[in-house]
Amino acid sequence: MLLLEQEAKELLEGYGIRTAKGVVCGSEEEAVRAARAMGFPVVMKVHGILHKSDVGGVVLNVKSEEEVRSAFRRLSAIEGSRGVNVQPQVSGVELIIGAAENEQFGSFVMFGLGGVFVEVLKDVSFRLLPLDRREALEMIREIRGYRILEGYRGFRADIDAVAELIVKVGEIVERESVVEMDLNPVFANERGCFVADARIVKGKRRSFEYEARDIGFFFNPRSVAVVGASRTPGKPGNNIIWNLKTHGFKGKIYPVNPNAEEIHDLKCYPSLKDIPDSVDVAIIAVPAKIVPEVMRDCAEKGVKGVVILSSGFSEEGEEGAKIEKEVVRIAKEAGILILGPNTTGGLNTETGFITSFAPLMGVNKGNISLIAQTGLFLGVLMVSIFSNHPHVGFSKIIGMGNKIDVQDHEALDFLLRDDKTSVVGIYMEGIRNGRAFYNVAKSAKKPIVIFKSGRTEYGQKAAMSHTASICGNDDIFDAVCRQANLVRVYSFDELLDVAKAFAFQPLPKGNRIGIIHYTGSGCVQSADTAFFSGLKLANFKKDTVERIKSVSPEWHGVNNPVDIWPMVEYFGVEKTYNTAMEAILRDENVDSMVVAMDVGPFWGDYSPNFEKLRSFGKPVYFVLEGHRDLVFEQKNKFEENRFPVYSNAINAIQVLGKVTRYALKYADTRR
Amino acid sequence: MLLLEQEAKELLEGYGIRTAKGVVCGSEEEAVRAARAMGFPVVMKVHGILHKSDVGGVVLNVKSEEEVRSAFRRLSAIEGSRGVNVQPQVSGVELIIGAAENEQFGSFVMFGLGGVFVEVLKDVSFRLLPLDRREALEMIREIRGYRILEGYRGFRADIDAVAELIVKVGEIVERESVVEMDLNPVFANERGCFVADARIVKGKRRSFEYEARDIGFFFNPRSVAVVGASRTPGKPGNNIIWNLKTHGFKGKIYPVNPNAEEIHDLKCYPSLKDIPDSVDVAIIAVPAKIVPEVMRDCAEKGVKGVVILSSGFSEEGEEGAKIEKEVVRIAKEAGILILGPNTTGGLNTETGFITSFAPLMGVNKGNISLIAQTGLFLGVLMVSIFSNHPHVGFSKIIGMGNKIDVQDHEALDFLLRDDKTSVVGIYMEGIRNGRAFYNVAKSAKKPIVIFKSGRTEYGQKAAMSHTASICGNDDIFDAVCRQANLVRVYSFDELLDVAKAFAFQPLPKGNRIGIIHYTGSGCVQSADTAFFSGLKLANFKKDTVERIKSVSPEWHGVNNPVDIWPMVEYFGVEKTYNTAMEAILRDENVDSMVVAMDVGPFWGDYSPNFEKLRSFGKPVYFVLEGHRDLVFEQKNKFEENRFPVYSNAINAIQVLGKVTRYALKYADTRR
Repeated sequence: MLLLEQEAKELLEGYGIRTAKGVVCGSEEEAVRAARAMGFPVVMKVHGILHKSDVGGVVLNVKSEEEVRSAFRRLSAIEGSRGVNVQPQVSGVELIIGAAENEQFGSFVMFGLGGVFVEVLKDVSFRLLPLDRREALEMIREIRGYRILEGYRGFRADIDAVAELIVKVGEIVERESVVEMDLNPVFANERGCFVADARIVKGKRRSFEYEARDIGFFFNPRSVAVVGASRTPGKPGNNIIWNLKTHGFKGKIYPVNPNAEEIHDLKCYPSLKDIPDSVDVAIIAVPAKIVPEVMRDCAEKGVKGVVILSSGFSEEGEEGAKIEKEVVRIAKEAGILILGPNTTGGLNTETGFITSFAPLMGVNKGNISLIAQTGLFLGVLMVSIFSNHPHVGFSKIIGMGNKIDVQDHEALDFLLRDDKTSVVGIYMEGIRNGRAFYNVAKSAKKPIVIFKSGRTEYGQKAAMSHTASICGNDDIFDAVCRQANLVRVYSFDELLDVAKAFAFQPLPKGNRIGIIHYTGSGCVQSADTAFFSGLKLANFKKDTVERIKSVSPEWHGVNNPVDIWPMVEYFGVEKTYNTAMEAILRDENVDSMVVAMDVGPFWGDYSPNFEKLRSFGKPVYFVLEGHRDLVFEQKNKFEENRFPVYSNAINAIQVLGKVTRYALKYADTRR
Repeated sequence: MLLLEQEAKELLEGYGIRTAKGVVCGSEEEAVRAARAMGFPVVMKVHGILHKSDVGGVVLNVKSEEEVRSAFRRLSAIEGSRGVNVQPQVSGVELIIGAAENEQFGSFVMFGLGGVFVEVLKDVSFRLLPLDRREALEMIREIRGYRILEGYRGFRADIDAVAELIVKVGEIVERESVVEMDLNPVFANERGCFVADARIVKGKRRSFEYEARDIGFFFNPRSVAVVGASRTPGKPGNNIIWNLKTHGFKGKIYPVNPNAEEIHDLKCYPSLKDIPDSVDVAIIAVPAKIVPEVMRDCAEKGVKGVVILSSGFSEEGEEGAKIEKEVVRIAKEAGILILGPNTTGGLNTETGFITSFAPLMGVNKGNISLIAQTGLFLGVLMVSIFSNHPHVGFSKIIGMGNKIDVQDHEALDFLLRDDKTSVVGIYMEGIRNGRAFYNVAKSAKKPIVIFKSGRTEYGQKAAMSHTASICGNDDIFDAVCRQANLVRVYSFDELLDVAKAFAFQPLPKGNRIGIIHYTGSGCVQSADTAFFSGLKLANFKKDTVERIKSVSPEWHGVNNPVDIWPMVEYFGVEKTYNTAMEAILRDENVDSMVVAMDVGPFWGDYSPNFEKLRSFGKPVYFVLEGHRDLVFEQKNKFEENRFPVYSNAINAIQVLGKVTRYALKYADTRR
């Protein structure tokens, strides 16, 4: 229900918001009287037409009776005019504050400068509701044109008042059941904010009911059935059993295949119902069209959860969608949880439970857990990750597939409660209950690193055919990341780079970085990157500089970044690096450190004193460069000691920038 | 010399530029007369004060005699007022067009929307002079607010007229010896452009005289002396000789060291003067303070060029700067060219000539040449590149060091003329004669890929201490890259990724890409990246889709990107990939292709038919994912066949985006 402008303004005034309320006038005389009562100048607008500016329906700065008359005649002649609105003219910076609903995330507010800034430059920021003053201030500071509010050519906005107005808009949306609101323009000056024009639509707000069911049993079942087990080595149905045995799963394994006696020395059963034991989890790897039948067996058998690996459901068209619907129906009725379909499923490195149909080796245990919406994750991608980072360890990996039942927020909720997990990494394309995800994510006390694709129309189209889920609008998603303090990354490589930093090293307490590099060009690139990553080059204290100078030739200047090569040439790798690194970490002006080393011929068998470095309680990231094989060998040694290694200083510092932003915001919101 | 506003406007009108010339009035009566003559509304401005808006010195929309009088009284009361300027009021989109000089690059023009757009949002574009209409149009389209010019809320600018005005500004700067010009505001509407206010400063324009001396002899000397040769293995002065012998340099090598008889079986000479032969190039690796003495010997000996590896010159302070000055003086007098100092110098893979003091192995010959302003380039960094990319080959590598003599443009000029070089990669921090570099670069008929650091104040400070050269303003540099069609990259990794694409594959003829990926998530990420990289997902022709469908299960949809995994499961890697790749390359709606493959267990010993792929004459880039070792092995096989391989689809498509932009612009400017 669209409120009339006057109604809308009255509603706003009821919340203590000042509006430039006008008078709708039907005649020249009425308009002149109204203008006189308000005092000149006034603004006159055609009444009864949206997008008034487009039809020349707004006259600003009307300064005299004569001008009122002429404006009235002009405006009332516009087709569709239902009178002329006379309002006092307020001045200041023109803002737009709006609210609307997003399909996945529900109500949000938008903030921006008015006119071309929002319409052409898209210089706006978003936040989900509810939001507090701190979040409102953040969204104000986020726009590129923020400096205009701080004071530009005589204007200056009362930023606290703008924040207050944004918070009130949020309140009104929630209390008055508003589904759309546009305060446009709002004038902000030193004395506060005035809403010049308001459009409010009340209605039934989208509701986001959800539960976060416990999916923990998926990762530690007592007994598991593999439906579609195969005798043929290399076939997916064979690999599943091979994986479970290879990873040392200690629970019962029941292969199901009507045509086999034994698979990998395990007795085979013709159907689920023939298994002489209860079954916690069934891994289903049969063609889509047979899955409903298997589900019925699962219901009968009292299976708690199924992992459906098969594809051919809604991602492949109508026929598949029908099957999917039936599968979900059976599951709901029987209280069975479904992970997938169209996935490699899950892995728990502690229990060796694994559902993947792709042979997986070289798993490393650790404290990173992953949620991924991609079919082959527990295949090619994890093989790539394990083999490239042998000392980066994982706890749980959850392949979500099409998410026809278990949702992202449930997987996340499980990992946030899991005490073996200290960092969560997420790959996501679409999301089904964004609001639930946001609520769970916002409460997190662990870092969450997220790579979201399907950002563009192109990508969304590709995602539709792939996972049959709806992609969120990327601007809203970006706001969600800021608001819930999710660390957003843009590739799997970056996801891993950031996750391992969180997993290995303490959080920084500030943004002042100390840098050591073995080349001058590395120093320059590092300094550039620090700036672009929101980090400050620490001002070393005098005694820090002295300490570093003790391992430097006299003619060589000591700055931050420390250009260490000439020092190494004189004092050797070990003495120089140890002295410089410890001096920097000891400095109370330093919150974090990035150290680059060349592992070439000058290196010898140098290894930093990791215990010593750790004792300062500040994050230290390394960069190792040189021959591929030597670098890999050294990197593994460093990462075994839980010091993350990057292939160049730009990467390392970008990661530190993201970690620092997370850490400072986390500390700030907990204060 | 600052022109008066009226003078400035007359100058502009002389070039056919319309200006809103006003009349400076000393009295109310005069102002009223002037306004009547022009027709209302008029604009009134205080005369004799800069930044008029800041003091309330501009009154717009003055509509009556009465208003003229009141405005006159207000304006003439402003302190410093020397009368009131009355001008006809023109309307339209407010623009700013300016010109100024940059220390490194000389005269440039700036374009942007007026007011906050330029002052707060910095939404401006730059181009060096001279510029043509095409370049002016490019700079107009480059700003974020471009849509405002195309038509917004009733306004629309005549974009051709704006371009013409920009070109004229360029002409005026050059013909009239202008060092600064601000046309602000310029009003653009459908009927053209009107300059409302103009500020012009004439003066002596910066001159950029330069020559591009031939430095080719550095890379193919008949005889070379190594001053500072050492008997001790592992010492820099020993490595140089070791490198020359290991790389098979066929010219004469004369080690110079007063305390040695022989080094690496070569007779040693106490000084340069004792060498019984002429010396083309001397490699100098003695402490900075001894270098002037060596230079004097070089002068006496008639050496043509020296490569000074030593550091300790102006990058390390005053003392070093003095030595540097002396070295340059001697060289100029004797006509000796200097490469360096503070560098590893040069490498020519064809002749085996190398000057590096860091032992270098595993060099790959090829058609990429590099110019790098970093000391250790021909050490650690090239070792890293050679070992990670064994089939990416290089021709010349030129370490520039402090550039006290030979400059970037001379190195570039040499490589552009070198027929063994087909792609040039550049790493640069500061630049000494930017204008010379720009001129040489703009004439290039080969792709130039450039990584420029020292972009921020932080980075520039670090660069000062490192290379003692001045860094250009990053915005201007970015304009230089666009204008000269340099491919700008942001890391060494990206430099190599782009360079190898140029080196291996043909240029695309359009921006329509076909993509194959083995995961759905890869398809989504690829589609996103294509969009962000300015590429279009090709619309496959009907028979292309049919061909691909012939290797697809019926239930699987064929789109672009092609999600190939379900197809591979049914038809095997070889048949599926070959059919899909050839179908796509055959399609006349496709200009380029990126193909991702998993090199895991399903792969077998599949290898694409490289000859067949090459026969279509379209660029094809590959992505290989999976186990580290397998990927490396396969990647080498592909790159040996000159098909570049990337570690993920995002990288590959970003590279293709940059290559495509280069190719289309190159074709366009040659048309």
